[in-house]
Amino acid sequence: MEKEVLIFGHKSPDTDTICSSLVREILDKKNGWNCTKAVRLGDVNKETQYILNYLGIEAPGLIEKVEEGQEVILVDHNDFAQSADGIENAKILEVIDHHRIGNFRTAEPLYYTAKPYGCTSTILFEEFKSLGHKIEKKEAILMASSIISDTLLLKSPTTTEYDKKALKELAEIANIDVNTYGLDMLKAGTELDDFSAEELVNLDAKDFEKEGKKFVIAQVNTVYINDVLKRQEDLENVMRNEMNKNGLELMVLAITDILNSNSEIIALGENAEDIIYKAFDKKLENNRAFLEGVVSRKKELVPNIDKSI
Amino acid sequence: MEKEVLIFGHKSPDTDTICSSLVREILDKKNGWNCTKAVRLGDVNKETQYILNYLGIEAPGLIEKVEEGQEVILVDHNDFAQSADGIENAKILEVIDHHRIGNFRTAEPLYYTAKPYGCTSTILFEEFKSLGHKIEKKEAILMASSIISDTLLLKSPTTTEYDKKALKELAEIANIDVNTYGLDMLKAGTELDDFSAEELVNLDAKDFEKEGKKFVIAQVNTVYINDVLKRQEDLENVMRNEMNKNGLELMVLAITDILNSNSEIIALGENAEDIIYKAFDKKLENNRAFLEGVVSRKKELVPNIDKSI
Repeated sequence: MEKEVLIFGHKSPDTDTICSSLVREILDKKNGWNCTKAVRLGDVNKETQYILNYLGIEAPGLIEKVEEGQEVILVDHNDFAQSADGIENAKILEVIDHHRIGNFRTAEPLYYTAKPYGCTSTILFEEFKSLGHKIEKKEAILMASSIISDTLLLKSPTTTEYDKKALKELAEIANIDVNTYGLDMLKAGTELDDFSAEELVNLDAKDFEKEGKKFVIAQVNTVYINDVLKRQEDLENVMRNEMNKNGLELMVLAITDILNSNSEIIALGENAEDIIYKAFDKKLENNRAFLEGVVSRKKELVPNIDKSI
Repeated sequence: MEKEVLIFGHKSPDTDTICSSLVREILDKKNGWNCTKAVRLGDVNKETQYILNYLGIEAPGLIEKVEEGQEVILVDHNDFAQSADGIENAKILEVIDHHRIGNFRTAEPLYYTAKPYGCTSTILFEEFKSLGHKIEKKEAILMASSIISDTLLLKSPTTTEYDKKALKELAEIANIDVNTYGLDMLKAGTELDDFSAEELVNLDAKDFEKEGKKFVIAQVNTVYINDVLKRQEDLENVMRNEMNKNGLELMVLAITDILNSNSEIIALGENAEDIIYKAFDKKLENNRAFLEGVVSRKKELVPNIDKSI
């Protein structure tokens, strides 16, 4: 039997991570490579569940860690801190990603395809095209959903012409109205009321490391920032716990208004005030700052905070 | 005026580094991107000079370092230790490479194309094809020469089917007999007699780092290993100097017989004996070991030594 190759995205999986894993498995099958299998590293979020329900398909299986020597394909991430436990000793055959590169190393040469696009699925869309494979309705919906999610309906500054072009073509194949489907999907992901403060903070939290200093930037999408801010005290308690437990220098929770494209951040840490001031020219008040027009962790929050640490 | 974007390969440039930089500039021009310019980080070696003379063209200009914010495209390397001084603060737009990834990080997303091929030029060959550009004689000779050099006439274990296919097609366009041209070119690169011991050791030396420990693996190609070994004492003196100067844990000089595909290594360092024994199951005698069938730094020397450190 051929060895199984696992495909997965990052921890705290979002829509691009789950859908791109599934699409990559479909692409492999079309290429006659039947031993790859999409898996996930954490719970599926509500937005992604909406898509899986829409398609009537199951989420990829959950794994806890990877064994030494396990062959893997990473999608939508490269940073080991965001990858499976044990990734250091896995055999990474390939990476398909749209993030900056950091905390990544391999013992041997590999396939690595990164493009500075809004979404991993846009890169996969281009692979379908360049390999001459027909895109079926199922993968069209998966890829369109990833693009809608990662670019917040093409409004995020990470959006490129390539994402727009891909989404247009995919929406036609999928036979969906992008705005109707997209808003339903995004709203399904922002039903936050029945999440505990702990769940909210961990919904989409990414770990970073710079010169031995660890920081976390978590993000929740909403259509009502104030509804989330009502729970600031509870959220801060959870964040402080996380910081103590993991020895964090800084923890930021970005509450992003996906309809109006702004974020309110809660930032904790000994030097949080300085770091945020240097990063965004904004003073923290009551540990909070309103960042007008800021929606992208990858393009706005991470690079500015990284430089300022 | 458009900003200039510099294209370069690694320090101690070899044929793939120089030729792939030149080819990438040609490819950019064909894509209508006129602001990119091939440069180099060190002296052109004799093998590469043979190719430049054959084509009647000049080597790319030499640069010493890159300024902060300089836009660059890296070919044939990614490790910052092998890149231009100042690379940490440059803006890396793109990487095209066939090495493992390590000591590489960016602040922002970028284009990154790596494939586990024998040669960077094989990846560039595929880009010409997928973009539908005609390959002219000049770039065919540059790419064919890179493949011949990096795969030692397709005999190195790093050689893939993609390299073979590319070389076959490129040789036809270039109108060269691969064996005749290739042997002339490789022999031109192995005229070592007029090199000082210091020049020999630095001809193609690559720096590596693992958990703060620095090591260097240098390589010289020859058709007569014994001619080089006659100078062992001088070579060791130079190596010891390098080690003291740069605080190296280990320094290896691989003397590779490109016709018979073997290497004799000279290894110095406090734990050299242990490291080499664990890496190759060979005892150092008089600081030397004969590694039968070993020719590739990337595929054989580096991964084995890296694991064993």
